[in-house]
Amino acid sequence: MNAAVRPEIGSAVSAKVEQRVRDSFNRQGLMAHLGATMKEVRHGLVTIRMPFRPELSQQHGYFHAGGTSAIADSAGGYAGFSLFPEDSSVLTVEFKVNLVNPALGDALEAVGKVVKAGRTLTICHLEVFAESAKGRSLVAIGQQTLMCMAGRPDTAA
Amino acid sequence: MNAAVRPEIGSAVSAKVEQRVRDSFNRQGLMAHLGATMKEVRHGLVTIRMPFRPELSQQHGYFHAGGTSAIADSAGGYAGFSLFPEDSSVLTVEFKVNLVNPALGDALEAVGKVVKAGRTLTICHLEVFAESAKGRSLVAIGQQTLMCMAGRPDTAA
Amino acid sequence: MNAAVRPEIGSAVSAKVEQRVRDSFNRQGLMAHLGATMKEVRHGLVTIRMPFRPELSQQHGYFHAGGTSAIADSAGGYAGFSLFPEDSSVLTVEFKVNLVNPALGDALEAVGKVVKAGRTLTICHLEVFAESAKGRSLVAIGQQTLMCMAGRPDTAA
Amino acid sequence: MNAAVRPEIGSAVSAKVEQRVRDSFNRQGLMAHLGATMKEVRHGLVTIRMPFRPELSQQHGYFHAGGTSAIADSAGGYAGFSLFPEDSSVLTVEFKVNLVNPALGDALEAVGKVVKAGRTLTICHLEVFAESAKGRSLVAIGQQTLMCMAGRPDTAA
Repeated sequence: MNAAVRPEIGSAVSAKVEQRVRDSFNRQGLMAHLGATMKEVRHGLVTIRMPFRPELSQQHGYFHAGGTSAIADSAGGYAGFSLFPEDSSVLTVEFKVNLVNPALGDALEAVGKVVKAGRTLTICHLEVFAESAKGRSLVAIGQQTLMCMAGRPDTAA
Repeated sequence: MNAAVRPEIGSAVSAKVEQRVRDSFNRQGLMAHLGATMKEVRHGLVTIRMPFRPELSQQHGYFHAGGTSAIADSAGGYAGFSLFPEDSSVLTVEFKVNLVNPALGDALEAVGKVVKAGRTLTICHLEVFAESAKGRSLVAIGQQTLMCMAGRPDTAA
Repeated sequence: MNAAVRPEIGSAVSAKVEQRVRDSFNRQGLMAHLGATMKEVRHGLVTIRMPFRPELSQQHGYFHAGGTSAIADSAGGYAGFSLFPEDSSVLTVEFKVNLVNPALGDALEAVGKVVKAGRTLTICHLEVFAESAKGRSLVAIGQQTLMCMAGRPDTAA
Repeated sequence: MNAAVRPEIGSAVSAKVEQRVRDSFNRQGLMAHLGATMKEVRHGLVTIRMPFRPELSQQHGYFHAGGTSAIADSAGGYAGFSLFPEDSSVLTVEFKVNLVNPALGDALEAVGKVVKAGRTLTICHLEVFAESAKGRSLVAIGQQTLMCMAGRPDTAA
C-alpha cells in the first residue's frame, strides 16, 4: 500500500524483533530435537541450519524429506513472523515442496523469504541448500502460506 | 489399464512385500528419532503413528508441522513403494500439505494412500489425524508425487 | 465446533443459497467462454461440466491443464461459497493440482468438496473426471485454500 | 553435473528450438481461445502475455485464476520443453499456484523458468504479473513439475 515506507525484505531488524523471533524458535521442541539452529533473522527473511546426523536420514542415508521440510517450514514461518505485529502469532496454513536434488551433505540450510505480506495471509518462498566439501547445492524449493493470528501473543501455552 | 487383475488399494499384501516395506522404514533414522512406528502395511496404503512428546512441538506446544509432514511423507512414500517392483526404490518428487486443524493430541496417525500408480510416477493422497481423549480429528491433508527408481534396489547405501 | 447442528457436506441447500451460487458463477466470464456449466450445487459440494472442443486443447489434442484447473478452481470456490454468510465473497488463496491421467474424452467434470470450513479459511478437495464412451476416469486431483471475504457481498464490481 | 558446458537459463536459443517451441504453442487451442500469445522464448525461460477481456473474468471482474493458471502452466511447460531433446514432448505432472494479489490490469504476463532440469523430471518456478497504467505487479507465484516424454515427438495427434 504505502510501499515507500516499508523496510525492504532482507534488511536488518531491530534487536527487539530479533529477540522475539529467536525466543519463539527456541520454544520449538522439534528444532532442538533435529539439531537445527537459527542463523540469520532479517526483515522477512530467516535462515535455519541443520547439520547431518544419522537420526535425520531416510532409507538411503540422505536427509529425510521430513526434516528438510521441517526446517523450510520454520524458516518461512519466522520470516513471516518477523513482519507481524507484536501481539500476534503465526500459523502455517499450507506448504508445498519440490525435492529437486538428493539432500546429501554436511548440513542443510533453509531460507524462508516473504514474497507477499498481507494483513491476514503472508506468502513465502522456501529454498533448502545442502552444504558439502563440493560446495552448496539447491535440494528443495517450496511455497508456503502463513496466517497472522492477531491478538494472540506468541507465548508458551 | 488391466484394472481387473490388479489388487485393490487397501487389500492385503504378501509377507514378503510387508517385510520389504518395514525393512526400508526401519532404515529411516528420522522415523526412529521422532518415535514414529509403522502400523499398517496394505497394498498401496500405509499408516504411521507418532505419539506426542515435547521434542515434537512447535512454539505453542502443538505438534510441529515438520513432524506432521515427515510422517505423512513416509506414509505416502511406503504406500507407493508397496506397489513397486522388487529391484526398485522410491523417491519423493514433491508434496503439499494443508494443516487444517491444530495438531494437538496424544498421537498423530498418518495415512498414505495411492490414488494413481504409474510406471514412473505414483500419486498419493495423504491424511494425518490427531488422536485424543475426545476422539480422532483430521489435522492435515496432502498430495504427493513419488518416483519409482527402477533397477535400484532399496538397500542401505 | 457445534458439528451436530451443521448440515452435512453434500446435503441439499436452500433455493436461496443455490441461486446465490449460480448467480455468482454466471458472472464468471471465463466459465461461459470455456463452455462450462454448473451442474450440482450442494452444501459444500459443487460440480462443473465442460464439454470438449478444440478451443480447450493443448498441443496433443487433450484438454489443456489450464482449462482443467479453471473448472476445478471454480468448483472448489463455489463449494466453499455455498457455506459462506450472505454478505461475503470468496477468493482463491492457492491451489495445487496433480494431472494423473491424460484428459481425453467428451467432457470433463470437476467436483469441488469442502474438507474443512473455517471462519476465514476453507480447504477443499478437488477432483476432475473425464467422461467418454469408455466410462468415467479420474484425470486430476487437487487441494485448494479459499478465503471468505466477510462484509463484501458478492456482486458485480 | 557438468554445468560449465550447459547454456545458462535465460540465454538465447537457436532459431530451430524457438520454432519448435512456438509451433507447439500454436497447436494449443486454449491459448488462442484465451487470446494468449508467446512473447519470449529463451533457454529454460518462456513468457506468455494475455490481454484482459471480459471473457477471462471471474465474478468480480478480475482475471479468473483459471486463466492465470493456464498461461502460467504453458509458460512453465514450454520453458522446460525448450531444454528437451528433439524427439520428445512435455507433460505437466502437477503445479501449485498462490494468488498473491488481485489479478487486475490491462494484461497478464506469465514467466516460466526452469529451476532444475532432469532427464525425466524438470521443475519450474512460475510468476504472473499484471500490467496496468500503475505499473507491473506480481499476482501469482507457482511451482510446477514437468515430465519429458522421450521418443514421443511433439506433433499433432
